Amino acid sequence: MTTIERSQFKVIGTRPVRHDGIDKVTGRAQYANDVRVPGHIVAKFLRSPHAHARIISIDTSRAEALAGVHAVVTGADMPGVSAILREQTEGSLVNLGLMSRNSMAREKALYRGHPVAAVAADSLRIADQALALIEVKYEILQPVLDALEAMKPDAPILIEELRTNVGSTFRGGGLRAEDETASHSNIATTFTMEIGDLANGFEDADIILERDYHTTAAHQGYIEPQSATAYWSADHQLTIWTTTQGPFGIRDSVATVLKLDPGQVKVIPTEIGGGFGAKLQISIEPVVARLSQKCGRPVKLTIDRTEVFDAMGPASPAYVHLKMGVTNDGRLTAADARLIFEAGAIPGSPVAGAANCMFTPYDIPNARVEGIDVIVNKPKTLSYRAPGAPSGAYAVEQMIDEFCEQLGMDPFEFRLKNAAVDGSRRVNGVANANMGFKETLDAARATDHWQTSLDGKLRGRGVAAGFWGNATGPASAIAGLLPDGRISYIEGSVDIGGTRTTSAMQFAEALGISSDNVKPSVTDTDSIGYTSNTGGSSVTFKQGWAAFEAANDLKRQLIERAAKIWSVDSSRVSYDSALLTNLDDPAKTLTIAEIAARQNGTGGSIIGHSSVVPRGVAGGFAVHIVDVAIDPETGKVTIERYTAVQDVGRAIHPGYVEGQMQGGAAQGIGWALNEEYIYSKDGRMENSSFLDYRMPTSLDLPGIDTVIVEVPNPGHPFGVRGVGEAAFVPPLPAIANAVAHAVGKRMFELPMNPRRVLEAMGEI
Amino acid sequence: MTTIERSQFKVIGTRPVRHDGIDKVTGRAQYANDVRVPGHIVAKFLRSPHAHARIISIDTSRAEALAGVHAVVTGADMPGVSAILREQTEGSLVNLGLMSRNSMAREKALYRGHPVAAVAADSLRIADQALALIEVKYEILQPVLDALEAMKPDAPILIEELRTNVGSTFRGGGLRAEDETASHSNIATTFTMEIGDLANGFEDADIILERDYHTTAAHQGYIEPQSATAYWSADHQLTIWTTTQGPFGIRDSVATVLKLDPGQVKVIPTEIGGGFGAKLQISIEPVVARLSQKCGRPVKLTIDRTEVFDAMGPASPAYVHLKMGVTNDGRLTAADARLIFEAGAIPGSPVAGAANCMFTPYDIPNARVEGIDVIVNKPKTLSYRAPGAPSGAYAVEQMIDEFCEQLGMDPFEFRLKNAAVDGSRRVNGVANANMGFKETLDAARATDHWQTSLDGKLRGRGVAAGFWGNATGPASAIAGLLPDGRISYIEGSVDIGGTRTTSAMQFAEALGISSDNVKPSVTDTDSIGYTSNTGGSSVTFKQGWAAFEAANDLKRQLIERAAKIWSVDSSRVSYDSALLTNLDDPAKTLTIAEIAARQNGTGGSIIGHSSVVPRGVAGGFAVHIVDVAIDPETGKVTIERYTAVQDVGRAIHPGYVEGQMQGGAAQGIGWALNEEYIYSKDGRMENSSFLDYRMPTSLDLPGIDTVIVEVPNPGHPFGVRGVGEAAFVPPLPAIANAVAHAVGKRMFELPMNPRRVLEAMGEI
Repeated sequence: MTTIERSQFKVIGTRPVRHDGIDKVTGRAQYANDVRVPGHIVAKFLRSPHAHARIISIDTSRAEALAGVHAVVTGADMPGVSAILREQTEGSLVNLGLMSRNSMAREKALYRGHPVAAVAADSLRIADQALALIEVKYEILQPVLDALEAMKPDAPILIEELRTNVGSTFRGGGLRAEDETASHSNIATTFTMEIGDLANGFEDADIILERDYHTTAAHQGYIEPQSATAYWSADHQLTIWTTTQGPFGIRDSVATVLKLDPGQVKVIPTEIGGGFGAKLQISIEPVVARLSQKCGRPVKLTIDRTEVFDAMGPASPAYVHLKMGVTNDGRLTAADARLIFEAGAIPGSPVAGAANCMFTPYDIPNARVEGIDVIVNKPKTLSYRAPGAPSGAYAVEQMIDEFCEQLGMDPFEFRLKNAAVDGSRRVNGVANANMGFKETLDAARATDHWQTSLDGKLRGRGVAAGFWGNATGPASAIAGLLPDGRISYIEGSVDIGGTRTTSAMQFAEALGISSDNVKPSVTDTDSIGYTSNTGGSSVTFKQGWAAFEAANDLKRQLIERAAKIWSVDSSRVSYDSALLTNLDDPAKTLTIAEIAARQNGTGGSIIGHSSVVPRGVAGGFAVHIVDVAIDPETGKVTIERYTAVQDVGRAIHPGYVEGQMQGGAAQGIGWALNEEYIYSKDGRMENSSFLDYRMPTSLDLPGIDTVIVEVPNPGHPFGVRGVGEAAFVPPLPAIANAVAHAVGKRMFELPMNPRRVLEAMGEI
Repeated sequence: MTTIERSQFKVIGTRPVRHDGIDKVTGRAQYANDVRVPGHIVAKFLRSPHAHARIISIDTSRAEALAGVHAVVTGADMPGVSAILREQTEGSLVNLGLMSRNSMAREKALYRGHPVAAVAADSLRIADQALALIEVKYEILQPVLDALEAMKPDAPILIEELRTNVGSTFRGGGLRAEDETASHSNIATTFTMEIGDLANGFEDADIILERDYHTTAAHQGYIEPQSATAYWSADHQLTIWTTTQGPFGIRDSVATVLKLDPGQVKVIPTEIGGGFGAKLQISIEPVVARLSQKCGRPVKLTIDRTEVFDAMGPASPAYVHLKMGVTNDGRLTAADARLIFEAGAIPGSPVAGAANCMFTPYDIPNARVEGIDVIVNKPKTLSYRAPGAPSGAYAVEQMIDEFCEQLGMDPFEFRLKNAAVDGSRRVNGVANANMGFKETLDAARATDHWQTSLDGKLRGRGVAAGFWGNATGPASAIAGLLPDGRISYIEGSVDIGGTRTTSAMQFAEALGISSDNVKPSVTDTDSIGYTSNTGGSSVTFKQGWAAFEAANDLKRQLIERAAKIWSVDSSRVSYDSALLTNLDDPAKTLTIAEIAARQNGTGGSIIGHSSVVPRGVAGGFAVHIVDVAIDPETGKVTIERYTAVQDVGRAIHPGYVEGQMQGGAAQGIGWALNEEYIYSKDGRMENSSFLDYRMPTSLDLPGIDTVIVEVPNPGHPFGVRGVGEAAFVPPLPAIANAVAHAVGKRMFELPMNPRRVLEAMGEI
């Protein structure tokens, strides 16, 4: 693998208009709720009003008798799947038995908002009437709403079948066969990672700090609520239109929980109005499918915003206990962390993500992370951009800031001194390679922002770094040559962040054409090879690679076709910038468009395709610098200046890369300063709307400057690393450090809202 | 090419349930009018009330001002395209300049029902109101409603730009550049085909008959009216959902008449509720697209049944003057035909189809056909199953019947004596090859029907033969291996007659799997290679071939994957009936499903594809035997017994083949006995509904027996010839012969309705 040099690029690094832009700004792009299958009816959920309750009985007879009701589904209608069924999905073990119970409660309602029944009817009004006619008898149980409470020996047990899974780092938790003798617990998983000798490491330290940090739940804030339409035909072919980040994973998971073969399920991903990790796994789809099966009609179910907040979980709240040691000359000697992540009602927090990322920017010879995944009576938490990593960085980067204060060291000097480099080992034992951290730190230090000093009372500047490993997975592409030379480029990756265009650009670069001549589209699970989900900042890497290979396949066929037309051997045809030349008679040339127009007469249509499972992923580092000002009267924090610096490997479309960096900062600002889940004691979310759940608006945000660093990833044909998630790791600690400097006192929990800031300032 | 023997087949020749059956019988299949693009509005046409009129002016201002009206289109809004623009489309030269004028009148309205304006509005009610507000000033001209009238030197000229095209046999007619000095005419095309020496041939004859035959217009009777939805985006990407037999041809033609590149146009074919040839070319699509462009909204236009009759033309009425000579021992010596076909208002009748087919069953050493394509002030005629051939056979097969009567010869003996065989020449000069006519005649003669004598007054039996050449063209297929071993098989051919299943069966046969494990689907023009239209009885042949090649491509990759898994060379892997065996260690085997489940872990998804332009077509012969009884009081003809015998090469799915044979007979019965276009003198169709246009219902039809003859086509991997159209050639003459025998008097024009039969019987 030789990474192509930037100077050779004609398309990569430019900023063409996105192919889906017109459709999106004109309102023509079709999202899941726009799906209109003829004859479809609509569905609604009945949700548990209790955070923890045994379901004694459900009487649906009156609802079923209501005119206009076509089907009612309860847990009894869902196929029997063991509560502890785990399956490999999208590269992770996921507890599909419990995910199926999350879609529709069986024995117990595990959180307020947990679906206990669903109705399909001619109209939403009739569905509402029918829901009111369903009688559910509950035995109300004591809810557990906090991870620390849930871990106590006498805590109420949520899931009877659950045993603690020890030592494995996979997501999804659950029972191992050999653990059947383990005791009941709300702890789904524990694991430990360790390198070096921790005791020796702390002995070498001159300063040791030990702190507890707490990050709260934060909603992903996607604009589009979950929505799915399903049609289960009489011959058991199931078609699902849904807003998802991973149609192939949905297909496979739905097939498992509904006891179908995956080949019976076709998932058609619609345009997606944001996901940020929350639309990776099955949620409403199995229930909508079952409703359709029961009544034989296409069924559409779209949840509303309150249901999103009540039942579609946020990022995991996390408790981080951190102890680190440093020498007087500023070298980290040891780090020890204990991470307790709330999974919500179903195992599977991203605690492993936090564990894998939190120490990675630094070369710490002696380190340990203990991770604990705990279930509580709240909705299953879902991934949110760099899942877990912001909570880990929140702790590590604040403590480093404290070290710098105590040592009187410049934060860049400290981080550069300790920066992990190729060859040093991570806490998970993996040796570092292709690291771009030092370059990112250098670029951040050189910014005008950092070079300009900050003055004024109640003003503070914070710096923090963050790491995300980026991901890969299988990806597939098909590229057909249209008769005018345009290319219909079809891929399996759902496009959230503009990846249709970045794929088209990489395709165009490889083929030597303009990206305007590529028509990219995303297709369904029956129409392209398996493509793993749009997550882990993987798409530009893996799908770009698939595009590269599909272009090469097409190029090979173009050369063969030209050779056939000229009656020469393929080796006698050269290809350069979309022009084919007969080397035996260089006056003879053919453009792609000329071959395109002659396809049928020279052997048929030319189609390139690829299916790749690429290795070569390289992680990405981000460094953010932020200036804040505190209002002395209200405690409100205003972001005055923000600069995001990131090594992206190679920016295919710099405009989108900047957008990802700015978006990460913006979402981080919201989480840091305002966003919060407020629960009543009995487990009811009290701010389940965008009016009360306070995400930042454009009025809350400054212009966010970006600096793209390019340390090309040698593992990718174009040097791509991945962008979207590393940008979301530094904001929490960067802002916390800035606020600490402004206030003169450090806070250890989120959000840093006016009340807490006033408290810290001693004003309350 | 070696055709595979029937005895080796496991799938071909069986009768699985069709893959689209459930969707169709449950009403879930989505036809064009089911398309619901969010935000779409609806459109209607304003149609000319005059059969021939110059358009002086159109004032749309009041319509445009009406609330709820989004766009009005007249001829002035359509891009300027020369009236004589001809383009190669689907292998035929089509006069797209005139086809564009057929979609929307420009200078003149050429038939009653010719669109002169179209309105897109929020509702059909508003559209109707708007149409009433459009003021069109016409200069009413004398209409010409009959081909013989139109050919007279003093006939009104319909299209000023039209000059007679001499000597070319293509469809679509029009002007050749070199003919600019030719005089104005309503004759679009004339041509002559000739072999041998006609004068000598007639000299050798002992009996010469010379007759005039007339076949009337007959509607194709498709259930689904034309309907299209178009969305023209602000960046000039045009998407069209339409009911068509040829989405790629629609794409290319729409691009030409709207002055787009074909790569800007994506055509999504819906399920099609019948076409029979009438949905091959553009009709409403350019106007719907232009409406969408004008208002920026998706626009749907569905015409009603009356509009179908008024404006979507039937099969061409035809005048056939035929002279044939035969020796006393029953050998045909000469044949001479003059065919005058009405094209409707736009050139392009299937007169060449008639000319190419009418004499082909017989070895006639001296023969000539003169063909004439004439325009009249009626809607453009459209193809209808074996276009042209029934009219030719109507003449030839009746005259043969007369010869048999005069010679006292058995109709099978006569036809066998004169049957064309491999090597004999057709009137178009082509040498016959792979003929299965004798085998078909032998099979027909051996039927119980023929072997059982017919008695009774006013009863008659008729026999007739027919030929159709069958067609081919480019076809493309993609076959993806789903994780459970099922195959997602995707093709470009619109499925009218069950071809999804016949493709799936040929694919399954080639791969050695069950056709139930193949999920066939039809896709759009951006998602598969060019595939020519579903016409000419080509699909089972060409698309089956594409399926065969895609299966072979998949098989090759399965072998490579198994070799990779076993770390052996591909040559050391055998493939037999979906089982792969390691020849170095035969205990090691892999099924397709086992490889399917391991795709991602062994290199990625496996996708086969193909794009073929196959040669090797072989024509098909049909022989029909029919018994009729005449009601002496009403003259009504009752079909008492009907047997259809046909050489199909190879029946992939015998049930569908039988259905095609029965459908051909049924449609032929309607055309022969009842169907008729009744026009007023000023060119208004007076029976434009299914109440008044009398197609046969199930109550009018007997059980139709079928005998499948299989003389495999050596030019196809599975021996396929094509089925759908040959079955429609013999009914008209077979019934005419039967009625002639029953009545004792021969009629020479259609329909043989009660009035005409009573006339023939001397009862009126």
